[in-house]
Order: sequence, then C-alpha cells, then structure tokens
Amino acid sequence: MNKYVVKFKPDGKIINVEEGKTIAESADMAGITIDSPCGGKGTCGKCVVIIHADNLEPPSEAEERFLTEDELKEGYRLACQTHVTCDMEVTVPQDSRIRSIKILSAGKGREVRLHPNISKIYVELPEQTLERQIADLTNIKEALKPNFTNVTIDLRLLRKLPYILRKSKFKVTLVLDGNEIIGIEPGDTTKKNYGVAIDIGTTTVVSTVVDLNTGSDLAVASALNTQATHGADVVSRINFTIENENGLEELGDRVTQVINQITEYACAEARVDTQNVYEVTVVGNTTMTHLFLKVPVRNLAIMPYVGVFSDPVETNAGRIGLNVNPNANVFVLPNIAGFVGADTVGVILASALNRSETIKLAIDIGTNGEDF
Amino acid sequence: MNKYVVKFKPDGKIINVEEGKTIAESADMAGITIDSPCGGKGTCGKCVVIIHADNLEPPSEAEERFLTEDELKEGYRLACQTHVTCDMEVTVPQDSRIRSIKILSAGKGREVRLHPNISKIYVELPEQTLERQIADLTNIKEALKPNFTNVTIDLRLLRKLPYILRKSKFKVTLVLDGNEIIGIEPGDTTKKNYGVAIDIGTTTVVSTVVDLNTGSDLAVASALNTQATHGADVVSRINFTIENENGLEELGDRVTQVINQITEYACAEARVDTQNVYEVTVVGNTTMTHLFLKVPVRNLAIMPYVGVFSDPVETNAGRIGLNVNPNANVFVLPNIAGFVGADTVGVILASALNRSETIKLAIDIGTNGEDF
Repeated sequence: MNKYVVKFKPDGKIINVEEGKTIAESADMAGITIDSPCGGKGTCGKCVVIIHADNLEPPSEAEERFLTEDELKEGYRLACQTHVTCDMEVTVPQDSRIRSIKILSAGKGREVRLHPNISKIYVELPEQTLERQIADLTNIKEALKPNFTNVTIDLRLLRKLPYILRKSKFKVTLVLDGNEIIGIEPGDTTKKNYGVAIDIGTTTVVSTVVDLNTGSDLAVASALNTQATHGADVVSRINFTIENENGLEELGDRVTQVINQITEYACAEARVDTQNVYEVTVVGNTTMTHLFLKVPVRNLAIMPYVGVFSDPVETNAGRIGLNVNPNANVFVLPNIAGFVGADTVGVILASALNRSETIKLAIDIGTNGEDF
Repeated sequence: MNKYVVKFKPDGKIINVEEGKTIAESADMAGITIDSPCGGKGTCGKCVVIIHADNLEPPSEAEERFLTEDELKEGYRLACQTHVTCDMEVTVPQDSRIRSIKILSAGKGREVRLHPNISKIYVELPEQTLERQIADLTNIKEALKPNFTNVTIDLRLLRKLPYILRKSKFKVTLVLDGNEIIGIEPGDTTKKNYGVAIDIGTTTVVSTVVDLNTGSDLAVASALNTQATHGADVVSRINFTIENENGLEELGDRVTQVINQITEYACAEARVDTQNVYEVTVVGNTTMTHLFLKVPVRNLAIMPYVGVFSDPVETNAGRIGLNVNPNANVFVLPNIAGFVGADTVGVILASALNRSETIKLAIDIGTNGEDF
C-alpha cells in the first residue's frame, strides 16, 4: 500500500497516510476534528477544506452539488469525499472545525443527604494465634460486624489478601461497595474516598470529581465528544454502527477515551489519585449510555425503536477500560425509553421533580433538541 | 543452551531436553509421572531410575545416601538429583511410577431433595411494538415475573442480547443462576441442564456429571492429581509454592488441567455438551481448594497455620479456566480450618451428619491420613 505525506494547515501537522483514506480520516489521525454533522455521507456539505496537490481525483457528485465550479478550481473539496491519492497540503478553515463549546457545568444546587454506596473502614485486626486460628477473610469479617454482614470479596483481591495484611501489620483500610470488599489498602486511607459523575452528551462530555466523605464537588472538566467525527446527532452515530463492522466498538472506545482524559484532568486539578476513585455514575441519552457500554444501538433507529436495557446497569471500571480504581463500581442510571435517557432521570433526581406536589416542567435542550 | 536427546524406557518416548534440567523434570515433559513424595528434595529416595549415558555427573550426596556403590555403578540414580548433561537412555521402573489408583467414586446414597441454583426457563416473548415500546431486557424481565424479580445480567451477555433474541424469533431459553441471567439460548433447551461435582484429592481428582433436572449422576471420571510431581502430601505442595516464584500458579494450572480432562471425559461418556454445564461444585482439603483458586497457601504451613478463606467462594468458570460454560457458577464449599477441609463439609452434608440426633463418627482416610 502506498503512503503519502499530508500536511495540515494552519496547524502545521504532517502525517503519513495510506492511499485511499479520506481527508476526513486523515485529519482525525492528525488530531484535527473536522465538523461532520452527516457522519461523512456527503449530505451536509459542512466539511469544506482547501487542497493543494498535483494529482487530485475528480470531484464526487456530492462535491459538485455543494461546491461551485470556481471553488473546485481553487481546490475547495469536501473532506469526507476526497481521498488521498498523492502528497497533499490541506487547509482546514476555522468554519469546518468543531470548536470548543461552552457547556453549563455548574448550577444552582439543593441540599442532598449524602449516602454513597462506598464506605472506607479502617481496621486494626488482631493477628491470628493458635487459640484464634481463623482464616484471614474471617478475621476481616469479624472486624466488620455488626455493620456489615454477608460480606463478599473478589477472587483477585482474595489472592492478594494475605500479603497486604502481613505487609501492613494487619492495619488496613477496607473499601466496601455495599457489602462487597473492592479494595484493601495498607494503613488508614479513609480520608481519600472519591467518586466521579459523568454526563455523556452527544456533543460534550463532563466529568465531576466528588469527595464521597463530604459531598463536595472538587473539580470539573469537559471536552468534546470525539464521536462527532462520525456524525453530529444520535441517528448518524447509530447509522455508523450499522454501516461499519467495528463501529460500535470504535464509538465506545472514543467516548471512553474522552472520559478518561477529562477525569484525569479533573483529578489532577483536585489533587486526587485516580486509584482512590471507587464509584463512577454515568448519565447520557439512551444512545450515549448504550454506546458507552458497547451495547448494540441499531434497534433504536429501526421501528419500533427499542433499546436493549432501560434498567440501571452496574459493572466495574476495569472491565470497561475506565482509568480509575479497576474495582470501582460503575453505575449507569436507568433510562425511560429509547429517546428519553438517563440524563433526564438525572435531571429529575437532581431537581427533585419526582417529589414535587405540583406539576412542573424541566427542559433539556441538547444537541438533538432540533425542535427548539 | 544445548539440548540433548532423552529416551525413556520401556515407554519408548524420546524428547529433546535443555541441558541442566533434572531427569524428573524431563520425565514430566514426556508425560511420565515419577513418584516424588518429598517433592524433589532428595529426602525420600523413591524416584529411582536407571540411566545409560556417556557423560553422567557424579552422584549427589542424596544419591550416595540412598543408593549402594554397586547400584550407582549400574546406572541407578535419583531422578530428582541427576541432571541432563548429554544424550541419555532412562529406564523408569514400575516401582518409581505413580500408578493409577482405584478410588471409591460411588457409594451408598440417600435421597436428597433437588434444589439446584440453576434454572432454565423457556420463554416465547411478545415482539415489541410502537404500543409496547419496552427495552429487550425489560421484555425478558416481564416474562420472568413473578417467579424471578430483581433479575440481573452480565454485561457481555447484554451486548449479545438483541442479536440472539431476533435470530431466534424471540423464542429463547434463559439460564438463571439465582436471579442472574447467565445464558440465553435460541429455542427450547430446558432439557439440557447439567452440573459437575468435583472432588480434589491430594492424590486423585474425581468429576461427576449430574443432570440438574432429574438429579441423576450421569457419568464419573477420575485421574491422578498431577501436582504429585511436586510432592505427595500437602506440606510438600505448600513448600513448592514457597520455594518457587510461579509455584502457586503452576499447581493451580495442573489441577485445573486434570479437572478439565476428566470433566470432558465424563461429559463425553454422558453425551453432554460441556457448554450445557452451568454449575460446578468443588470440594477438597483446605490446601487443595486454595491451590485450585490460586490463593496463597504459605501461611497454612507457618504458625499459626491459617488459610485465607474458610467461607464458600463463588466465581465463574471462565475466570478460572474451567472448560464448561464460561458463565457457569463455580461454588467451592466452605472449609472448617486449615487442615479440616471442604471435603469434610461435603461428607457431613452427604451423610446428613449435621442432622443426626445421636453422636456419629465419619472417617476419611486420605493421602494425608498417615496416622492410620
């Protein structure tokens, strides 16, 4: 396969690209996000770029529809339509880029009684003796009584248990998710107990780091949802997963990457070690939460438009590639229907709409709120 | 690294062995299990072999202790002491081999009311419509009411759910472990519902295939516990994990391999597809169940002789490499203490000793019953 040099201006980024890739794909490789509301179908005409090259392919039908003859002569092309056929210099105008968008990431709060599912308990265990010859896990369970009963533990953690206990002279902090032990840390680390709240928007993703001991928001960070490369709205994203064998995988990976970036950023700002994040709650519209979990979305776009789940989904961070404590609980809020998502459930809970005695209206105008 | 040809007689097996390996290690590679009660320390003198070679190393202290001068002249050596230093012909006498041992694998039964944790439920789901626009999982949960509530499902299975449902025209069999869906199979497979009971002995491992619908034992198979290469009794095995960095891993892998072999054999005999095995119960002495789960055993051999767990451990087959349905529940029975194992708990349950109104005695004379 031939490779050609593509230079992007005014960024000055130069990359080697395989023959046959589109300019849009090449820009993505170079880390430049070109606006592509139609998801690269050539139906919106938004991804205009200016190409200087010796051996350009003739314009596609779509390019002839959106660009004048003069523009085509000057090298104006659509990034999703034109392929790399030789060395090229590509100028990406500001209008064709997805710009950083201000998103409301704070608001008026109300008092919420703190009741996280994560508890950190410091214990100084009595060392076993010939008179008290109990197993290590039993030793821990005895110390947790009567507050925690029927305590369980993950097998991987069980394998490390004897080493951690003896290395820390039986003084450890237990991290419990409900009654499951998800962490054992040497010494007293009860003060380091954090959670992260994620809002996956079709356009923007927001991550907030919360102190689970005090309930304070410590830091917040946001970034564009890079799935946008494959379409601006949820229907384009769903179509991308239908038309591309690895589409679901790719869109899932993209949003996970964004979540990891902004969560690391927010944790750094709050001086929180990501390994001390034990709980992640996630909201988003139904397509976004499905894509995040890599659960197929195709039936959301096909009559009668149903999702795979509407109940909450629980898993752990390690299994889905989130860079926090690998045993951290990941809780995706329930959705109401295919197009009424967990984000709406979040709004209802946060605004206590469900407890209101009078009729109230909550309005969430997002990417897909075209009607407004 | 030089390699030499080692021929084992009377087996006729010929293998290439790296210089410096012991004859015992070489025999193990050739699939010949040499008796090694002391675990290769040169303290028992049981692993006598006869070696013909041009360039043998001088006998070790241990060999001089256990073998006469005449024997040494004739090529008698200890397999755990002598290293491969040239091409060799090694005769392994019958007395130095671990022989296939008859183990009691059946006995007098008593009637037990069948109450497995696994249920298989065949459902014909109503297809969703615009009037009944519910998610796939909700559709399933509705069908399971009122017998099963708070139903959960593994994320990997959730990802496949929409495909399986539509491919099988919404006629599926759900496999439930308690209230967790661990399998979704096209059509009605309720008749294929099997479990396996494993008894891990220090010397012998037994696997019994059970029909979970009828409670009948369908087939039983047994084999030697190949951990014996590293010592005949539990203390030698524990020492092997202390003295070898990967010892725990290796002993765990060995018993898992044996379990897989005999379970496949028993399933084949019973004409059961291993993928239809959804439940595995495991007993064994405390060292054996720890090794099976690759949980460290070192403290069982050090004062005050405690294990890591005594409660039951639950995991699933895929996570520990058992070749049955990967979502099958694996249940390791509780042990009572470091040297009173889950096998004893099994005896108590099977003989209903715990319900006896008079004092009774159960005797289990196993490998470690040296006192008898």
